[in-house]
Amino acid sequence: MTAQLSKKGEAWSARFSEPVSDLVKRYTASVFFDKRLAPFDIEGSLAHAEMLQAQHIIDAQDYADIQRGMEQIRTEIADGKFEWLLDLEDVHLNIEKRLTELVGDAGKRLHTGRSRNDQVATDIRLYVRAAIDDINGLLRDLRLALVDLAEQHADTILPGFTHMQVAQPITFGHHILAYVEMFGRDAERMADCRKRVNRLPLGAAALAGTTFPIDRERVAKTLGFDDVCHNSLDAVSDRDFAIEFCAAAALVMTHISRMAEELVIWMSPRVGFIDIADRFCTGSSIMPQKKNPDVPELARGKTGRVNGHLIALLTLMKGQPLAYNKDNQEDKEPLFDTVDTLTDTLRIFADMAGGITVKPAAMRDAALQGYATATDLADYLVKKGLPFRDAHEAVARAVRVCVDKGCDLSDLTLDEMHKFSDLIELDVFQVLTLEGSVAARDHVGGTAPNQVRKAIARVRAQLG
Amino acid sequence: MTAQLSKKGEAWSARFSEPVSDLVKRYTASVFFDKRLAPFDIEGSLAHAEMLQAQHIIDAQDYADIQRGMEQIRTEIADGKFEWLLDLEDVHLNIEKRLTELVGDAGKRLHTGRSRNDQVATDIRLYVRAAIDDINGLLRDLRLALVDLAEQHADTILPGFTHMQVAQPITFGHHILAYVEMFGRDAERMADCRKRVNRLPLGAAALAGTTFPIDRERVAKTLGFDDVCHNSLDAVSDRDFAIEFCAAAALVMTHISRMAEELVIWMSPRVGFIDIADRFCTGSSIMPQKKNPDVPELARGKTGRVNGHLIALLTLMKGQPLAYNKDNQEDKEPLFDTVDTLTDTLRIFADMAGGITVKPAAMRDAALQGYATATDLADYLVKKGLPFRDAHEAVARAVRVCVDKGCDLSDLTLDEMHKFSDLIELDVFQVLTLEGSVAARDHVGGTAPNQVRKAIARVRAQLG
Amino acid sequence: MTAQLSKKGEAWSARFSEPVSDLVKRYTASVFFDKRLAPFDIEGSLAHAEMLQAQHIIDAQDYADIQRGMEQIRTEIADGKFEWLLDLEDVHLNIEKRLTELVGDAGKRLHTGRSRNDQVATDIRLYVRAAIDDINGLLRDLRLALVDLAEQHADTILPGFTHMQVAQPITFGHHILAYVEMFGRDAERMADCRKRVNRLPLGAAALAGTTFPIDRERVAKTLGFDDVCHNSLDAVSDRDFAIEFCAAAALVMTHISRMAEELVIWMSPRVGFIDIADRFCTGSSIMPQKKNPDVPELARGKTGRVNGHLIALLTLMKGQPLAYNKDNQEDKEPLFDTVDTLTDTLRIFADMAGGITVKPAAMRDAALQGYATATDLADYLVKKGLPFRDAHEAVARAVRVCVDKGCDLSDLTLDEMHKFSDLIELDVFQVLTLEGSVAARDHVGGTAPNQVRKAIARVRAQLG
Amino acid sequence: MTAQLSKKGEAWSARFSEPVSDLVKRYTASVFFDKRLAPFDIEGSLAHAEMLQAQHIIDAQDYADIQRGMEQIRTEIADGKFEWLLDLEDVHLNIEKRLTELVGDAGKRLHTGRSRNDQVATDIRLYVRAAIDDINGLLRDLRLALVDLAEQHADTILPGFTHMQVAQPITFGHHILAYVEMFGRDAERMADCRKRVNRLPLGAAALAGTTFPIDRERVAKTLGFDDVCHNSLDAVSDRDFAIEFCAAAALVMTHISRMAEELVIWMSPRVGFIDIADRFCTGSSIMPQKKNPDVPELARGKTGRVNGHLIALLTLMKGQPLAYNKDNQEDKEPLFDTVDTLTDTLRIFADMAGGITVKPAAMRDAALQGYATATDLADYLVKKGLPFRDAHEAVARAVRVCVDKGCDLSDLTLDEMHKFSDLIELDVFQVLTLEGSVAARDHVGGTAPNQVRKAIARVRAQLG
Repeated sequence: MTAQLSKKGEAWSARFSEPVSDLVKRYTASVFFDKRLAPFDIEGSLAHAEMLQAQHIIDAQDYADIQRGMEQIRTEIADGKFEWLLDLEDVHLNIEKRLTELVGDAGKRLHTGRSRNDQVATDIRLYVRAAIDDINGLLRDLRLALVDLAEQHADTILPGFTHMQVAQPITFGHHILAYVEMFGRDAERMADCRKRVNRLPLGAAALAGTTFPIDRERVAKTLGFDDVCHNSLDAVSDRDFAIEFCAAAALVMTHISRMAEELVIWMSPRVGFIDIADRFCTGSSIMPQKKNPDVPELARGKTGRVNGHLIALLTLMKGQPLAYNKDNQEDKEPLFDTVDTLTDTLRIFADMAGGITVKPAAMRDAALQGYATATDLADYLVKKGLPFRDAHEAVARAVRVCVDKGCDLSDLTLDEMHKFSDLIELDVFQVLTLEGSVAARDHVGGTAPNQVRKAIARVRAQLG
Repeated sequence: MTAQLSKKGEAWSARFSEPVSDLVKRYTASVFFDKRLAPFDIEGSLAHAEMLQAQHIIDAQDYADIQRGMEQIRTEIADGKFEWLLDLEDVHLNIEKRLTELVGDAGKRLHTGRSRNDQVATDIRLYVRAAIDDINGLLRDLRLALVDLAEQHADTILPGFTHMQVAQPITFGHHILAYVEMFGRDAERMADCRKRVNRLPLGAAALAGTTFPIDRERVAKTLGFDDVCHNSLDAVSDRDFAIEFCAAAALVMTHISRMAEELVIWMSPRVGFIDIADRFCTGSSIMPQKKNPDVPELARGKTGRVNGHLIALLTLMKGQPLAYNKDNQEDKEPLFDTVDTLTDTLRIFADMAGGITVKPAAMRDAALQGYATATDLADYLVKKGLPFRDAHEAVARAVRVCVDKGCDLSDLTLDEMHKFSDLIELDVFQVLTLEGSVAARDHVGGTAPNQVRKAIARVRAQLG
Repeated sequence: MTAQLSKKGEAWSARFSEPVSDLVKRYTASVFFDKRLAPFDIEGSLAHAEMLQAQHIIDAQDYADIQRGMEQIRTEIADGKFEWLLDLEDVHLNIEKRLTELVGDAGKRLHTGRSRNDQVATDIRLYVRAAIDDINGLLRDLRLALVDLAEQHADTILPGFTHMQVAQPITFGHHILAYVEMFGRDAERMADCRKRVNRLPLGAAALAGTTFPIDRERVAKTLGFDDVCHNSLDAVSDRDFAIEFCAAAALVMTHISRMAEELVIWMSPRVGFIDIADRFCTGSSIMPQKKNPDVPELARGKTGRVNGHLIALLTLMKGQPLAYNKDNQEDKEPLFDTVDTLTDTLRIFADMAGGITVKPAAMRDAALQGYATATDLADYLVKKGLPFRDAHEAVARAVRVCVDKGCDLSDLTLDEMHKFSDLIELDVFQVLTLEGSVAARDHVGGTAPNQVRKAIARVRAQLG
Repeated sequence: MTAQLSKKGEAWSARFSEPVSDLVKRYTASVFFDKRLAPFDIEGSLAHAEMLQAQHIIDAQDYADIQRGMEQIRTEIADGKFEWLLDLEDVHLNIEKRLTELVGDAGKRLHTGRSRNDQVATDIRLYVRAAIDDINGLLRDLRLALVDLAEQHADTILPGFTHMQVAQPITFGHHILAYVEMFGRDAERMADCRKRVNRLPLGAAALAGTTFPIDRERVAKTLGFDDVCHNSLDAVSDRDFAIEFCAAAALVMTHISRMAEELVIWMSPRVGFIDIADRFCTGSSIMPQKKNPDVPELARGKTGRVNGHLIALLTLMKGQPLAYNKDNQEDKEPLFDTVDTLTDTLRIFADMAGGITVKPAAMRDAALQGYATATDLADYLVKKGLPFRDAHEAVARAVRVCVDKGCDLSDLTLDEMHKFSDLIELDVFQVLTLEGSVAARDHVGGTAPNQVRKAIARVRAQLG
C-alpha cells in the first residue's frame, strides 16, 4: 500500500464523498502558522514512540525507523528543505506523511494510541514551557540591567510625582527599582503558570483515552513534565494554561507600558530628565530636527496587541462544550504573537536600559520646584508634638503663602514660618533640603540611598 | 548627489550620531506587513503629485517622471520583483527610494508638502474604504444565499427555541431570515463607517499643515474622498475610523458566531436538523467515522480574534497625547487581520449556505415534542374572553398534567381540557396543529409562511 | 380571582412543582437594576394597550383602566412609594402585578399579544434612544465650550508635539479644535447608531409573533420609532444596537482619555502650559502642597470601564443560539453604567473647559526650544529650488550643529547657514519666527490663526 | 480646634481658594462603593496604630483612644447607624473624621507616617485576600458536589462528543470529573495569586516612605501578611495583584460557561440527557409550558461581565506613570463586582450540582447512534497487526457502508466485515459494545469506570 496522506483529507478520506474546496482548505489549514511547533511535535512523537516500543505496542525496528525518519525530517526542516503542504492541513500530518514516505509502515504505526487532539495539546504545552523559560531569562536580564542603572543613581534626586504633580523628593535609583519589583512579580507569575503548563496531555487520545496499554508516566518523564493530566476530556479541550500565560504576558506588557510612558515623558524637552541613545530612536521624514523615542512608544502600543490576544483566547473558550472543537485551532496565532511580542520587547528593553543617559541637574531643578518637602515640614511639626492633621493644615497654609509670593518653603524666614506654627525652629532648614528629605525615609522600601543600595543587594542575591 | 535612502535611517541620518541596531530595526520596521498598502500608497502619491504640479509646486516634467516611475514600481510589485528592504523601514520609504533611483530629483520632490504622518493616514483610509466595499459585497452575497435557502423552506416547520427549550413552532425560512436581518444591519453599519473613513488627511503634513500652497480639495476629488479632514492634528493622530470599522466587524463576527453555533447544534446527531456538505467538513485522525463541521466551528472561534483586535486598537489609542506617536504603527496588523478574517469568513459562509441540506422530518418531529402550541391554546382562551394571565395559568396546569401523563396537549380529550377551562370547544384542535400555529402569526415580522415570502421579496428588492 | 403575581414565579407557577430558592431568586432577579426602565416600560405598555383597543383586542374600558392604573403607578414611582419586590423578579412583572392590583382584569389583559421578550427589547431601545439624545446634547455643549476656548487662543502659540518631541509651532486654538473634530465624529456615530436603535421589536412576542391581529406600525408611530423590526426572532434576540452604542461610547471615552492625558501633562509643573480651576482638583491627605487634576485623571481611568462593558456585551452575545436566552439579562448593567459614565464625564468636561487657564508665556518658551521651525527652513530651501529630500538633509545637518553649540537655528549667522546651503538669504529669519511659521500654514485644516477662526465659524454654524 | 474634616476637601482646604462643585464631588467620590472596605480599613488602621505606639511615635493613651473609637465605629457600621458623607469623599476620610469626633487629637495622630495611597492599597489587599479565601472554599464545595455526582454515574455511559459529533463512548462520571480538574486548577491559580496579594504596602506613605521610625514587619505580622512590599513607589501605584485575581476569575467563569453550555444543551428536549430541578429554573410570561434553565444561562452570560472587568483594569493601568494617579480609584468597582459574581455563581453551582437528574437511557440511546466504537474497531485491527493508518482507512470504509445502509457497525455480519479486513474475527463484537469500549480505556486519565473511581478517591484525598 502506498503512503496514504499525500493530500489533505486523506487521513479520513474513505468516509467522505466530496473533496474539500480550495477556499475551505485555506480557511481550515493551520500549517502556515503551526509549523513552528515542528520541533516540539517531533520531540513528542519520539517520546510517544519510545513508550510504544517499551510497552511492546510497536517493535524495536519500528521505533528505530521512526527515530531515523524523524532525524532526517529535523534536518530537512532546519535546512529549509522540508516541503510544507497546505493539502496536509497541519504540522502533524505534514510530518507524519513525510515520515511514512521515509520509513513506511513504522510511520503508519506512530499514531497508535494517540490522536491529533492530545498531540497538539502536548506540542503547545512544550512550546509554552520553552517560551516561559526564555521569557524568564529575559526578565532576569532586564532586571539586572535596571539594577545596574539604579545603582549608578542611588543618590540622584528627582521629584517623585503623584498625579504628575510634584510630591516628594525621591532617588532615581529608587524609582527604577519600582520596575525591578514589578518585573520580579511577572517572573513569579510565569513560574507559577509553568507548573500548570508542565503536565502531559498525551494519552488522552481523541478524548477518552486509548485501548492500548500505554504508560503515560513514562512519556511524562521523557518529556520533562511534572505530572500527567488526570482527565482525558479536560486534557484535550482546555486551554486555560495558555490563557493564564497570556494574562501574565499582559501584565508584563502593562508594566512595560508604564515604564515606556515615563521614558517618553522624561525625554520630552520640557522635562529633559533623560536622553535615550540614538540607536533606539528614529527621525522624521519631514522634520529634520526630530529624534523620537520610537522603541518605548512602540512597546507602549504593543500592550494593546497582547491585551487583545488575551481577549481573543477568552472569547474563544467561552461556552465551548466538551471535548475538542475546531474553534481551538484559533488558540495558536494569538499565543505565538504574544510570545514574539514579549520576547522582542523584553530583549530590546534590557538593551535600552544601558542606553539611557540620566541628567541629574534637570532632575534636581525639577525637585526644587513644587514644594516637594512640604510633607517633611508637616512631619517635623508632628515630631514637635502637633497632631498630624493640624500639622498638615499649618503647612498647607504656608504653601498657599509661598504660591502667592512665588517662593519656596525654604525661602521663608523663621519669622514668617512662625505665623503658621511657633513650634518651628532653626533646625527646620535641614529638613527642607532634598538630601535631608530622601535620607530620612530610611526604612525597608523607602527612598533613602541607603535603602536603595540594600534593595539592590537583595535583588542581586535573588538573581544569583 | 546619489540616492539618499539606501539604508533605513538615511531619511534623517544627518542629525544622528549612531546607527540603529539590527534588533531595533526589526522591532520598529513595518515593511513586512505594511507593504500591502503599496497600491494605496502609490495612488495617494500620484494624486498628491498631480496637485503639486497643478499648483506649480513641482513642474510638469517632475510630475511626468513621478508617473512613469510609479508605473514601473507598480509593475515590479505586481511581478514580485520589487525588493522590499527592512533597512528602509516601511512601505513609504521603500517606494520613495525606488522612485528616486528610477527618476532622480523628481522622486526627492514628491514628499514636498506632506509627511509620512498624513501619508500613512491616507493609505489606511484608502485601504479601509476598499475593504468596506469588498465586505459589503460579500454581505450582499451571503444575504442573497440565505434568502434562497429561506425561500426553499418558507413552509418547513421546526420548533423555535428560547433557552434551548421548545417555545413555539416557526418556519425554517423565518429562522434563516433572522440572520438576513442581522447581516443587513451589519452592512448599514459598514456604510455608515465608510462616511467617516472617506475623508482626506493628506495636507495635514506632520501635524500642522504645510507652508506650500496646496489644494486639498483637488486631491480629495482625485482620490474619491467625500471631504477633507478639517483639522491637521486630528487628521494625523486619530484612528477612530479604524476602531469603528473593527467594532462593526466584531458585530459581523458575533452574528456569524451565532449562526455557526446553530449549524453545529443542528448537525449534531441528537438534533439532526441539517447536514452540511462534505466539502465544508473534515474527519478525524483517529476516529474513522467522524464528519466534523469545521467551517462553522472555526468561524465561531474567529470571533475571539476580531474582538481581540478591537481591544488592541482601543488600548492602543487610550491616553495618547496629540499628535502622532509611534504607538500608531501598531494599528495595521489588527486591522489587516480583521479584514482578512471577515472577508474569508463571509465568502465561505455564502458558499456554505448552498451546501446545507435541511431535514424537514427531523424538524417536524422536534416541533411535535415539547408543547410548542401551548401559547396558541392560551391565545385561544383569551379570544374566548379569558384575561391573558388567567389563560396562561389554565394552560400551564394543562401542560403539567400532560407532562405527568407523557402526552401532548392535542392528545387530551375535550373533556379533559374542560378541567382547565370550560371555554374550550372543538375548534381548539385546529389551533393546536403546527400549521395552524405558524399560519396564525401573520403580521409584519411574524413567522407565517405568507410573511416569510413577503420578507424575502422585500430583501430582494432592497438588494436590487 | 385574586391577583396572581404576588410572588415571583407565579407568572408560571402552575407548571412547577418546587419554588425557587432565595439564592436563585437573588441570582436571577433583575429588578434591582432594571427598575430604571420603568418610565419606558410604562410608555411601551400604554402604546401597546392603545393599539390593542384600536384593534378591538381589548375594549375601551380595559384601555381606560390601564391608563388610569399606569398613571397611578407613575406617581407612586416618582414619589418613591412604589414597592419593588424581589419576588417579582423584574420591572415588568412588578408593574404588571401592581396594575392588576389597581385595575383588576384589565391588568391581566395587558400582556395579550406580547411577551417579556419583546417588551424588554422595546424598553431597552427606548432607554438607549433617550440616552443617545442626552449624550448628543452633552457632546454639543462640550464642543461649544471647547470652541470658546479655541477662539480665545486662536493666536496663542505652543509647540506641537509628535512623539512628545517638539515638532512644529501650532496655535492652541488649533490644538483644541482637534478635539472638537473628534467629538463631532462621536456625535455622528451616535446619530447613526440611533437609526438602528429606533426600530420597534414589540409584536415579536416570545419569538414568532402573535396570533392576535396586532398593528405594529401603529405602535411604532405612537412611540416615535422609525420602523418596525422585520423579523421576530431577530427582534427578541439580538442586542447589536446596544453593542454598537457601547462601541461608540468607547470611542467617546477614548477621545476623552487623550484630552485628559494632555490636561494632566500640561498642568504638570515641568510643562506648566495650563492651570485647572481648584474646583476640579483635590489635594492630598499627606502632602499639604498638592493640587491634583483629579477630574481628568479619573475620566482617563473610566475609559477602562467602558472598554470593559463593550467586551462584556460582545462576550455575552458570542455563540448564542436563537432566540432569547437568559444570558441577555446581563445586557443591562454594562449598558446603564456606560450611559452614566458617559453622561457624567461629558457634563463635567464641558464645565471644566471653562475652568482652564492658559499660560501663553510658558507655551511660547517651550516653542522656542527644540528647533520647531526646522521644517520651515527645509520648505524655504525647497522654494529656492532644492528637492525636498536634499533640503531635509541640509537642515538636519544644521540642527546637529546647533545641538552641539546649544543654540537655536535662528541664532546662526547667515555665514554659518551657508555651510549647509548657499541658497539661504536674509529673508530666512522671518521664516524662522514662530509667528511666521504658523501663519504660513494657511490652508483648510492648517494651524494658521486665520484658519482657526474659519474652522470655529464652521463648527458654530453646524451646531446652529 | 474643631474637627477639621466635616466637609470634603477640608483635608487639604487651606491650600485651595475655591470649593469643589457638587458635580465634581459626586464624580470623584468613592464612598458609595468603597465603604465596603470599612472592616479592612479599621483592621489596617489598628495595626498601624499599634505599631506607632510600639515605636513611641504616638503614646499609649492615643492608641487606647484609637482602639476605643474604632470599636464604636465598627458597631455603628454594623448597626447601620454610621453616617456616610459624600462630602468626605471616601471610606478613609469618613472613618478618620468620625474617629476624631469620638476621640479628639488621637484621631488626628492616626495618619502619622502613612498616606491614603498606602492605606487604600492595604485595604484592597486585605479585601482580595479574604475574597480568595472565600472563593477557594466555594471551589472546594463545588468540586465535592461534582465528585458526588460523578460517583453516582461512574458507570453511566453517554457519547463523548468532539465537534458536537459522536466520538467515543465515555462515562458520565468521567465527563463530570473533567470539570473537577478545571476547578482544581482554578483553585491553584487563586492560591498562587494570594501569595502576591499578601504583601504589605503600608509604610510606603504617599510614594517615598516616611520620615517616622516605623516598623513595617511588625504591621505585616499583625495583619497576617507574608512579606512587605519592597519598594514604596511600586507599593502605592501597582494593581497587578488585582488584575491577576481578575484574570484567574475570568478563567473560573470560562470554565463555568462551558459547564453551563453543556447543561443547557443536555436539558434541551432533543438531547434530554438531564433535567435540572425546578428551583433552578423559571418559566415564561407567555408560553405556559416552558421550563428554562435560567441559572446556567445567566452564569454563561456573566462570563462577559468578568472578562469586561479584566479589560477595564488592564486598560486602567496601561501607560500610567508612577506613582499613584487618581485613575486608580477606578480599580474598585470592577474588582468588587468580580468577587460578587464569582461568589454567587460558585455557590449556586455547588447547590445546583445536587439538583441534576441524569437520564441514563437517553444517554445510552445517543451513544448507540453515530458509530461511537469505530475507533475501537480500528484499535482492534492494529492489535491484529495492521498499521494504525491502514486500520483507520479500513474502518472509514466500513462506516461509509453503514451510513449508506443505515445500520451500526455491530449490525454488520462477519462476512461483510471481511470486505474491509480479513483480520476481523468473532471477538470483534465484544469490542464493539459500549461497555467493552469504555472499560478498555483503563489508564490514568482514561474513561474506564475503574479509573473514574480512582480519580474520585484522588480528589477526595486532596480535598481532605
